[in-house]
Amino acid sequence: MISFCQFGAGRIGAIHAENIARHPDARLHAIVDVDPAAAERLASRHGAVVATQAEVLADPAIDAVVIASSTDTHAELVEAAARAGKAVFCEKPLDLDRRRAEACIAVVAECGVPLMVGFNRRFDPHFARLERQLRDGRIGRPELLSITSRDPSPPPLAYVRVSGGLFRDMMIHDFDMARWLLGEEPVEIYAAASVLTDPAIGEAGDVDTAVVILHTRSGALCQISNSRRAVYGYDQRVETLGSKGALKADNVAESTVVFAGADGIVGDKPLPFFLERYAEAYRRELDHFVDALTRGTPPAPGGDDGVKALALAEAALQSLETRRPVAL
Amino acid sequence: MISFCQFGAGRIGAIHAENIARHPDARLHAIVDVDPAAAERLASRHGAVVATQAEVLADPAIDAVVIASSTDTHAELVEAAARAGKAVFCEKPLDLDRRRAEACIAVVAECGVPLMVGFNRRFDPHFARLERQLRDGRIGRPELLSITSRDPSPPPLAYVRVSGGLFRDMMIHDFDMARWLLGEEPVEIYAAASVLTDPAIGEAGDVDTAVVILHTRSGALCQISNSRRAVYGYDQRVETLGSKGALKADNVAESTVVFAGADGIVGDKPLPFFLERYAEAYRRELDHFVDALTRGTPPAPGGDDGVKALALAEAALQSLETRRPVAL
Amino acid sequence: MISFCQFGAGRIGAIHAENIARHPDARLHAIVDVDPAAAERLASRHGAVVATQAEVLADPAIDAVVIASSTDTHAELVEAAARAGKAVFCEKPLDLDRRRAEACIAVVAECGVPLMVGFNRRFDPHFARLERQLRDGRIGRPELLSITSRDPSPPPLAYVRVSGGLFRDMMIHDFDMARWLLGEEPVEIYAAASVLTDPAIGEAGDVDTAVVILHTRSGALCQISNSRRAVYGYDQRVETLGSKGALKADNVAESTVVFAGADGIVGDKPLPFFLERYAEAYRRELDHFVDALTRGTPPAPGGDDGVKALALAEAALQSLETRRPVAL
Amino acid sequence: MISFCQFGAGRIGAIHAENIARHPDARLHAIVDVDPAAAERLASRHGAVVATQAEVLADPAIDAVVIASSTDTHAELVEAAARAGKAVFCEKPLDLDRRRAEACIAVVAECGVPLMVGFNRRFDPHFARLERQLRDGRIGRPELLSITSRDPSPPPLAYVRVSGGLFRDMMIHDFDMARWLLGEEPVEIYAAASVLTDPAIGEAGDVDTAVVILHTRSGALCQISNSRRAVYGYDQRVETLGSKGALKADNVAESTVVFAGADGIVGDKPLPFFLERYAEAYRRELDHFVDALTRGTPPAPGGDDGVKALALAEAALQSLETRRPVAL
Repeated sequence: MISFCQFGAGRIGAIHAENIARHPDARLHAIVDVDPAAAERLASRHGAVVATQAEVLADPAIDAVVIASSTDTHAELVEAAARAGKAVFCEKPLDLDRRRAEACIAVVAECGVPLMVGFNRRFDPHFARLERQLRDGRIGRPELLSITSRDPSPPPLAYVRVSGGLFRDMMIHDFDMARWLLGEEPVEIYAAASVLTDPAIGEAGDVDTAVVILHTRSGALCQISNSRRAVYGYDQRVETLGSKGALKADNVAESTVVFAGADGIVGDKPLPFFLERYAEAYRRELDHFVDALTRGTPPAPGGDDGVKALALAEAALQSLETRRPVAL
Repeated sequence: MISFCQFGAGRIGAIHAENIARHPDARLHAIVDVDPAAAERLASRHGAVVATQAEVLADPAIDAVVIASSTDTHAELVEAAARAGKAVFCEKPLDLDRRRAEACIAVVAECGVPLMVGFNRRFDPHFARLERQLRDGRIGRPELLSITSRDPSPPPLAYVRVSGGLFRDMMIHDFDMARWLLGEEPVEIYAAASVLTDPAIGEAGDVDTAVVILHTRSGALCQISNSRRAVYGYDQRVETLGSKGALKADNVAESTVVFAGADGIVGDKPLPFFLERYAEAYRRELDHFVDALTRGTPPAPGGDDGVKALALAEAALQSLETRRPVAL
Repeated sequence: MISFCQFGAGRIGAIHAENIARHPDARLHAIVDVDPAAAERLASRHGAVVATQAEVLADPAIDAVVIASSTDTHAELVEAAARAGKAVFCEKPLDLDRRRAEACIAVVAECGVPLMVGFNRRFDPHFARLERQLRDGRIGRPELLSITSRDPSPPPLAYVRVSGGLFRDMMIHDFDMARWLLGEEPVEIYAAASVLTDPAIGEAGDVDTAVVILHTRSGALCQISNSRRAVYGYDQRVETLGSKGALKADNVAESTVVFAGADGIVGDKPLPFFLERYAEAYRRELDHFVDALTRGTPPAPGGDDGVKALALAEAALQSLETRRPVAL
Repeated sequence: MISFCQFGAGRIGAIHAENIARHPDARLHAIVDVDPAAAERLASRHGAVVATQAEVLADPAIDAVVIASSTDTHAELVEAAARAGKAVFCEKPLDLDRRRAEACIAVVAECGVPLMVGFNRRFDPHFARLERQLRDGRIGRPELLSITSRDPSPPPLAYVRVSGGLFRDMMIHDFDMARWLLGEEPVEIYAAASVLTDPAIGEAGDVDTAVVILHTRSGALCQISNSRRAVYGYDQRVETLGSKGALKADNVAESTVVFAGADGIVGDKPLPFFLERYAEAYRRELDHFVDALTRGTPPAPGGDDGVKALALAEAALQSLETRRPVAL
């Protein structure tokens, strides 16, 4: 039985808390949040207590922490928890700054505690199934990989301003997917981007539409395409070509119901956003973390994966600014 | 080179004429129609002459006739053409009356000329592909067969009145499909039907919505479902289950274009009606007839198939009237 | 908070127990089973106690019972629980004999307790969505309804022998679906059936392949098709046509992954069987029962629905034996 | 009635010849080919004569020429035909060298004859339907465009060597599609490419796998992805996102037949290669040319489109060599 403390009682925190609470081998002991009322609500829903950071890190009964607080607190909390000997699950990103993230995982390495970074998409049943078939050689080595990610609508400007920008906030998931599916590291990246969905995003110094090409040593090529607006819902697709065929994982529709009417054959839209689309992925992600702790094996994706995805995001930004491909 | 005369210059006649004209081994020599202007238009389009029945049947240069005139003229024309030694392609049905049709094919048999009946669906590339896989044993013996046929909208009442009714006019195609796909003869039929799309159809003594169950000796079961109204277009599907799997042939959409919008994921409707959906089937049907004449092999489906489908239509009607299954 | 006792600790019992246990407004208090070890295993997994029927029915702390024991115990347990004033959720069927089921619901009516019958498919998110759109008039009145249900493989003979036969055991779900989706009662039924998947099923007096036509007063027609064997998985589909279009709910695939290879474009099979396909339906079904008890509204489907589906199964059997349609 | 001479009696020539021959307003008068036997075969199939270039260009009865000979003869033939006052349809590319192509269209402009370049995909019914909806504003302005083109298998090395390379030979179609669908000119291009399907292609100085990003002034972004090998068939897809939704045109399958078996749900592969996939596009392309000549309107795509697509191919090659984006 793994005893957890969770930092953060917001939207994503609610999901992790429920997944801990329902896990037969885990126990949600405490919630820490800057907003005591939010902490109290979430704690009471799952029979946990509200505590301070100092209390939980000093408590030997706590085995592991889940860090689902705001991004600017991640690196510090990871380090503090590692120093207190706790196993750490940290939502992505470790930090908006790659060097800070590198320093952070160095601390974790010194402390010798397990660290898992929340790249939830690796646990989506559809993408996981595709990845397994890819690993099993069903299509041979991947030669072309195409990843499409589109949010249903742009985030609030307040969020945009602290998000670290589209590459660090949104495409970082696709960078992790690319590394995971390609099975090798990109050696070069080129990015192009525009402000097309909301001029205010541009005024805030960010972009809302972007495409990227990644190049690997073996010659495999990866295309990533992001948009902050897809009125038909959350668009999350992956497609890869190899010498023996192609594998594709498509969107998950709200239902299989199809209406055939005078204006066409109408199917349901994809599940609206990440909470719905990745509900099962969040469950399996937490299961994997608990399972790894229970067996004493390293959880994955780890801190290194977090840093490498960040490095790709930084390089994409540099490519955009210099209008040149960037070697990695 | 087979030299043709065609009876009938209407909608279906225009299709057959074009398919004869474009065939490298066929020549459209003459058109016969009660409407001289229509005959003239079609003949001039394809470099044919307008002629009378007497002329063409007496003309030794004519090898074959296509009968695409009104249903009430079919049986008589088939017999006259057979007696004149012409090969005959006759649009379905041979006659609305099964006994008349039986008498007709007896004459054809005596004369020893080839006779093909226009069950065009056997030549649809999708259904033909399904049938070939079925014959090749891909799913084992068919155990359940389901045929769905729906017209986009009810026919004009004037047509309903002379059509012979839904079973003889519309479901007759499905009866032929059932015989062809099951690979054995039904031994019992049960029909249920309603007037749901247009009360005037009921007043004309017909039905517009019908379902049928066929039973074969081997125990295979077949469901047929017809409606005179499907606002999303011409609905033509077949599905069959066997011990090793199922085979399905779906509708053919107008294009592969899909629009993903705020109200759903919208694909194109099926091709609107039989002229579009079965354009290729009509071509292949005529090709088969020319090919059979050229090789001297019997074309199929033949007169016997025409009679057997009619017998099923009559039995369906009897079942509907007696509210009992009818043995065949 | 509703306190539950559950009768039956088998496969379906395990599902209901978990859904009770995870419900915030329900508590699984006790498990009763003829096999004490099974009862103990299930009870201990959810922190419940093992008890006898007498104990739980006498216990005023128990509000409701879930009956998931073998079919032959259903009616008696429903009556006993009703007489003890407990709300009752009973797996289908109430009994294999319609008269016994009628007697049973008469007792429930006298006792004035809520009774819900486990027609889980009404709670499948896909079928429920279709039904809502049907009720909202999206296609107008249903004119044709087609229900396809196929099991992945025939049940063990031991099960076949006590199952009551295909119509009472398997098609009973489709009868309930038909009543629910048509929104009116069938007035006539015709059934045809064969033994095609396993001769031993025939020797046991049952059939394994069956088709049925239902007729309603308004003229709507319904086709049902059942097979005990579909090697591609659990096949559960519904399709309905109305004056304004058609609605279809298709199978749920294991994932959206598609492999494009030299032999074709290969998608995943449907979810393998009812435990997987209807996992969410079982959850929502239990949620509905708890919700109805909490609000004091009658749960649905109720005892009457259970009896009416049984009546259709009996009539189908009679139709099969007499080879005649049966009026209802 | 437009009287045609066709240069080239090879694979693509056979298609154009048949489309001319079957057109009611066109007449195939003469075939010119370096191989007299090939010219004779094609001419006799369509009732045309075999002639020399000098003869046909001097013949005032010839209104138009179709140039379907080898690429190295295109520019010279276009000029010669233009100087002889013939309307010209030229297969892509006008020339492998952009400057030569520019000189060629300058000659055509001087001569004042109509020139159409054979970018057949614009006439594919699926892509044309997508383009029309795009033009009609169904999704607003295009923001992201994604074009996927994959050949079923690499071309023979002999072809690779004279093809001008992947960008000029294969992706040139996608460049034209991009310009056509975006409705504006790209201002920057970046290309990345590999040799993954056949090392001999690399030894011949070409690539077999490539991705490109195009940038327009308005900020719209376009991704193109090419591979010389897709074992599942000819893969030709387009997808575009705008503020009001997305439009997608998918592959055209060989049939709608689906086999559901123990290993999955198997659909047919896409039509095998361009002759099958674009059969209808070739017909409509020729129809458009004849129609434009008949009405006296300029056919499109014209010489300028041919040059602009070539310019994109050259810039892609330059980007690949310099590893930099190239401004246009």
